Amino acid sequence: MNAPSMPCRPVTAADWLDRYHRIRAETEALAAPLSPEDQTVQSMPDASPTKWHRAHVSWFFEQFLLQPHLPGYRCFDPRYAFLFNSYYVSVGPRFERPQRGLITRPSAGEVGDYRTHVDRAMTALLGGASDALLHRIAPVLELGLQHEQQHQELICTDILHALSHNPLYPAAREGWRWPVPATASTEAIALRAGAHPVGHRGGGFAFDNETPQHTAWLQDAAVAAQLVSNADWLAFIADGGYTTPALWLSDGWPLAQQWQAPLYWCRIDDVWHSHTLGGLREIDPCLPVCHISYYEADAFARWAGQRLPTEAEWEAAEAGGALGNAFGHVWQWTSSAYSPYPGYRPTTGALGEYNGKFMINQLVLRGSSCVTPRGHARPSYRNFFYPHQRWQFSGLRLAR
Amino acid sequence: MNAPSMPCRPVTAADWLDRYHRIRAETEALAAPLSPEDQTVQSMPDASPTKWHRAHVSWFFEQFLLQPHLPGYRCFDPRYAFLFNSYYVSVGPRFERPQRGLITRPSAGEVGDYRTHVDRAMTALLGGASDALLHRIAPVLELGLQHEQQHQELICTDILHALSHNPLYPAAREGWRWPVPATASTEAIALRAGAHPVGHRGGGFAFDNETPQHTAWLQDAAVAAQLVSNADWLAFIADGGYTTPALWLSDGWPLAQQWQAPLYWCRIDDVWHSHTLGGLREIDPCLPVCHISYYEADAFARWAGQRLPTEAEWEAAEAGGALGNAFGHVWQWTSSAYSPYPGYRPTTGALGEYNGKFMINQLVLRGSSCVTPRGHARPSYRNFFYPHQRWQFSGLRLAR
Amino acid sequence: MNAPSMPCRPVTAADWLDRYHRIRAETEALAAPLSPEDQTVQSMPDASPTKWHRAHVSWFFEQFLLQPHLPGYRCFDPRYAFLFNSYYVSVGPRFERPQRGLITRPSAGEVGDYRTHVDRAMTALLGGASDALLHRIAPVLELGLQHEQQHQELICTDILHALSHNPLYPAAREGWRWPVPATASTEAIALRAGAHPVGHRGGGFAFDNETPQHTAWLQDAAVAAQLVSNADWLAFIADGGYTTPALWLSDGWPLAQQWQAPLYWCRIDDVWHSHTLGGLREIDPCLPVCHISYYEADAFARWAGQRLPTEAEWEAAEAGGALGNAFGHVWQWTSSAYSPYPGYRPTTGALGEYNGKFMINQLVLRGSSCVTPRGHARPSYRNFFYPHQRWQFSGLRLAR
Amino acid sequence: MNAPSMPCRPVTAADWLDRYHRIRAETEALAAPLSPEDQTVQSMPDASPTKWHRAHVSWFFEQFLLQPHLPGYRCFDPRYAFLFNSYYVSVGPRFERPQRGLITRPSAGEVGDYRTHVDRAMTALLGGASDALLHRIAPVLELGLQHEQQHQELICTDILHALSHNPLYPAAREGWRWPVPATASTEAIALRAGAHPVGHRGGGFAFDNETPQHTAWLQDAAVAAQLVSNADWLAFIADGGYTTPALWLSDGWPLAQQWQAPLYWCRIDDVWHSHTLGGLREIDPCLPVCHISYYEADAFARWAGQRLPTEAEWEAAEAGGALGNAFGHVWQWTSSAYSPYPGYRPTTGALGEYNGKFMINQLVLRGSSCVTPRGHARPSYRNFFYPHQRWQFSGLRLAR
Repeated sequence: MNAPSMPCRPVTAADWLDRYHRIRAETEALAAPLSPEDQTVQSMPDASPTKWHRAHVSWFFEQFLLQPHLPGYRCFDPRYAFLFNSYYVSVGPRFERPQRGLITRPSAGEVGDYRTHVDRAMTALLGGASDALLHRIAPVLELGLQHEQQHQELICTDILHALSHNPLYPAAREGWRWPVPATASTEAIALRAGAHPVGHRGGGFAFDNETPQHTAWLQDAAVAAQLVSNADWLAFIADGGYTTPALWLSDGWPLAQQWQAPLYWCRIDDVWHSHTLGGLREIDPCLPVCHISYYEADAFARWAGQRLPTEAEWEAAEAGGALGNAFGHVWQWTSSAYSPYPGYRPTTGALGEYNGKFMINQLVLRGSSCVTPRGHARPSYRNFFYPHQRWQFSGLRLAR
Repeated sequence: MNAPSMPCRPVTAADWLDRYHRIRAETEALAAPLSPEDQTVQSMPDASPTKWHRAHVSWFFEQFLLQPHLPGYRCFDPRYAFLFNSYYVSVGPRFERPQRGLITRPSAGEVGDYRTHVDRAMTALLGGASDALLHRIAPVLELGLQHEQQHQELICTDILHALSHNPLYPAAREGWRWPVPATASTEAIALRAGAHPVGHRGGGFAFDNETPQHTAWLQDAAVAAQLVSNADWLAFIADGGYTTPALWLSDGWPLAQQWQAPLYWCRIDDVWHSHTLGGLREIDPCLPVCHISYYEADAFARWAGQRLPTEAEWEAAEAGGALGNAFGHVWQWTSSAYSPYPGYRPTTGALGEYNGKFMINQLVLRGSSCVTPRGHARPSYRNFFYPHQRWQFSGLRLAR
Repeated sequence: MNAPSMPCRPVTAADWLDRYHRIRAETEALAAPLSPEDQTVQSMPDASPTKWHRAHVSWFFEQFLLQPHLPGYRCFDPRYAFLFNSYYVSVGPRFERPQRGLITRPSAGEVGDYRTHVDRAMTALLGGASDALLHRIAPVLELGLQHEQQHQELICTDILHALSHNPLYPAAREGWRWPVPATASTEAIALRAGAHPVGHRGGGFAFDNETPQHTAWLQDAAVAAQLVSNADWLAFIADGGYTTPALWLSDGWPLAQQWQAPLYWCRIDDVWHSHTLGGLREIDPCLPVCHISYYEADAFARWAGQRLPTEAEWEAAEAGGALGNAFGHVWQWTSSAYSPYPGYRPTTGALGEYNGKFMINQLVLRGSSCVTPRGHARPSYRNFFYPHQRWQFSGLRLAR
Repeated sequence: MNAPSMPCRPVTAADWLDRYHRIRAETEALAAPLSPEDQTVQSMPDASPTKWHRAHVSWFFEQFLLQPHLPGYRCFDPRYAFLFNSYYVSVGPRFERPQRGLITRPSAGEVGDYRTHVDRAMTALLGGASDALLHRIAPVLELGLQHEQQHQELICTDILHALSHNPLYPAAREGWRWPVPATASTEAIALRAGAHPVGHRGGGFAFDNETPQHTAWLQDAAVAAQLVSNADWLAFIADGGYTTPALWLSDGWPLAQQWQAPLYWCRIDDVWHSHTLGGLREIDPCLPVCHISYYEADAFARWAGQRLPTEAEWEAAEAGGALGNAFGHVWQWTSSAYSPYPGYRPTTGALGEYNGKFMINQLVLRGSSCVTPRGHARPSYRNFFYPHQRWQFSGLRLAR
């Protein structure tokens, strides 16, 4: 898979509407194989029910587009704002996050009705929008669509986590398979010391956290063209990787002692398996390792006598064009703390809560994963998670 | 409502079968108004999903009757024993109790299929049973039916707890109403000091914890003919009941500081309401107070200058015949620790785990509640809960 | 050791003063071998620092005798009331119990000065007391002395717990030895069914929780003349006592899985030792087992095919005169919940908080231990602890 | 106060010995006013008892210098290695950190004896050392002395935390006063965009985490010459700083709701005071604000419409020479995550555990505080703490 193509922002209302409906339909396609029961549960505070994701992204359009811009719009249910606001403190109180899995009503079906209601109103809004209005709402509309795509990935990661608690190893999607990575060079990509540009160069959509583009000074370095594979990881396990304290960051060592393999791995009759979106599967040594924490990625790199790349190194290497499987397989942990870029300014208003307030205690992942929606990824994309988190489709590549 | 009539144990296979199907149908009637989503969630470790209750009581028949006694019986799914065993250590490992709410599959529908499978097999077992076999399995069959009735009550208490987390105040059963208590004497029932019999006198079914009948020595006492009402409780609240430490047992005081009313009560526009099985309702002062902990019952009694009755006093007073609303409204906390009666012997085998191992840290409640199945209660019945628990339909009457 | 003699209440002021100084000196003798560091730490919320005990019992005299009854008495330091009030809600706020170990000042030496100050004032109070005053304050004075004796036992139990965390196995008192139990009959004491008196019969001091004397109806039973020994306990361990779920109460089983022997036992070079007040000692099979929880006592009894006696049985058997080693070795768990006796009335005023508010969730222990002060025990004494607690000098005898 | 002078590494054994004894004596001088009780307690897992610090730094010399290099050296007590190893996994097991406050023995006095024993042996080692040996051990000796100085600061921060739990507001050092800051320019220091050197340039001691020196690319920026003062902070509080969610990072907001001022501040009769090393003091508006977390520093900067400097900016501004009160008052939070510098290599062997394994989840503070030992600070020094921690002498300066 090559670098993702930048989405061209639609120009006409019809283009927007087409894109809107396409993305909304993708969400419903992900939810379709899931039963009402599947869609209801929340397996940890970090995850959310499918039903909640489906409603929350709809609330986003209602809150930030329909209410301000569609005259006479009537909320589907005014109480939903309380239930389906995620973390926008500025727009009112919210239902407690860790209890989202207790909300059995509205049902999955009623959430479908809510989505239809919002879709109809959005069709009316866009269908009747003057060029001036279209121009004014385009940034929020774009953000709403990007936002829904982010939640599409979360629907996948969260349902896998939920189903992983079931000893019957159910599949979220029958027949789901890991994508097969392209062959990548065994030679690392060399970076020359000096000033490199980092961040989104403009043209096409980017989140505020990717901006402004700025200069970073890199030292001589080499970034692996290949992702670390399951075969590599099995060697790490076999060599006592999880039981050697000197390999681990101090904060990670207590966790390492509770782990003995990536998340979702289990040993059945002496063979390593993994619970995937398609159910239980034997570990394939050729695939990239997935569902590892930053602590594990860092320990693996130390064991291998190398290190993780910084996000600037990753972006510079990607720009060189030889980074294998950068997109569409696993997010790749970098050693960079998730901080504001020099000169970063959050969007004003409630949408300014989108990114900035999370810029602490997390690390940046680059690339994209096999559950990232098509057209959503780009080289400057900054994903971020806490170093102990493993339920995302996260892997690594090495640097030195 | 008068004292419940003792269930007459059926004699013929046809009688048994009729009773079996009646009780099984009552379970399904309770679940019928609940959506698949409702039936899936678990709102605290003490509670279980409706779906789990429906499956667990079926597993009981499968484990203790069909597997040992129906030749050629095939389990519906051999993995269900792991999922739906509650606490019978002797019959194998169990799925972790606090995670029952994460089991989205089998679905509510599949659990219905499981129930049908078990019902068919039970029909075959009972239909074809010789008198000798019938005689041999009758005690376990009886226990299985009583057990299912106990879970019918838990379906009601647990779904109310689950729905109470929903800010939309949904109803478990549209139109559900509190039963109206009969008028009871304002005069208390006097007990004379001396030896009184306590426990099940034999004849008809009783759990092992109600036996053996034995003598207890009571002092002079008086037990209230009336249940404590919501009006009484409002007076307690108004008089600072929840904020006066001298009223509270030491272990209860930290909890009192988190409470300000019974569970499910909430103040809306200065009026006390309660979330009931029928949705949100205004507090009716004439009804018995419900959903209180032992700590609250005890503090109320101290505030009223009285005390709670012991279970022996309750039973002696009930035998006198003037105890108002003893059954069918709220379980009544007694001051008696849940301990074995002198000479108590648990049933042998796995079913010996039914009662005895819980005889610590809990207190006995007597009578029955508005969600206790008809025909399930009796004067010697010992219900038991921890002193902090409030999600049962629990209230009190006073003694002095 | 025979049943303890009842303390004769002193008659003259000189007698009271003599007894007062004798008991106060015993406290200081217990603290004398402990360094300032030893006296400061608190190893768990249930325990308190030696220094705190020494100050708290002094505060009791200051609060309930000197301030109300000695004209012109000046508090040593008015801030001490906040630091050294244990749980008397009625007399003002208190320092948080779990943080008592953070109070480095006043020092152990300053607490000694506080004690001297209180002793001088008490000498003045009693020396100058009219007969009328003496008569009036006698009950509180008696309670103050009994209270100080209770804390003498706690000084021993708490410092052992604190020192047990030190891998150097330090001794609280060099040369301390377990008392050797007297030989007891292997024949159990038979109790006849019928009405037996229970509780303090009056004459001499008793805590309010031992009253009123009342009738209990006992069934035929037999109570062991012997305490369960370390030899018995080693057999229980060897037979898998700690790993057999069927032996354990449900609430105790999770704890059993963390234990493998009584508290303070450790296996060194395959030999069981115990950390005692005299430092590390090899387990002596002839001694009574000590430092066990109720859960362990109950599991042991079930393993032995017997049960624990109720407190009424214990008291009736003790009255028979053949109970071996009832006092002075280990407190003996009974199966009785710590509840008020019929007709129980707590003392009025602040001292009414002494006992009643703890009558929940605890079980009664009878007899006394090797660290109970001489003259403090009596047959009607009700000690009480939670079923998981093990740091007291607690053992058991069986019944059937 | 100007930038600290670099310590000149001693050349002769006599110089080393002199410096060794000087630094060791400073530790004892800090402990001298503290009672044995003060020296024993541990008020949170992050802090350690004074006694422990005094022993641990001695163990460091014993472990890494005396045992390997002084022939015939006998450990003071071989069990101390277990008690006083902090976190060097490579050199053996350690006593659990959160229980350090339970170790009453060895006493403070015995720890003094241990220090004397180590000092004598160090005198012997250095007195008899050949030039070759001296050359070989100089790096570890230097590290041992720097290490002891770090613990001198921790003795101050940890005892203040411990004493702060005492409602009597005791002083760790009678008469202790905050140093008065020098007047600093109100004009900020301008930084020009471009490549700047960061890290220790060599010559004199530095910790491994300050190396290698490398190039960082800075953007145009301005760093305040002044520290943020208590007066500034009072304005922040008065303007609702602690109650405005939009000012706070998402992870900090739950903490903000438990805080209402810096650590150790308390309001007495409507006047803000602070518990200091010298006891309770009224807040002086002219002093730099102290004892704040990163979350508070970051929220304050956002409130002020500015931001925190990165550590590279801080270092570049300090090199310019106009940074007021950079050293000797409060450590200054930067916005930089504590990460390895490009090309960082930890020391080999056990001492490699000194810094590297903590490079996660923490943020860098620059400068030094009023309790940093004289001669210990330098411009490239990287101190690091978690963003929620407040018990250090931490403050801030702004940037934009």
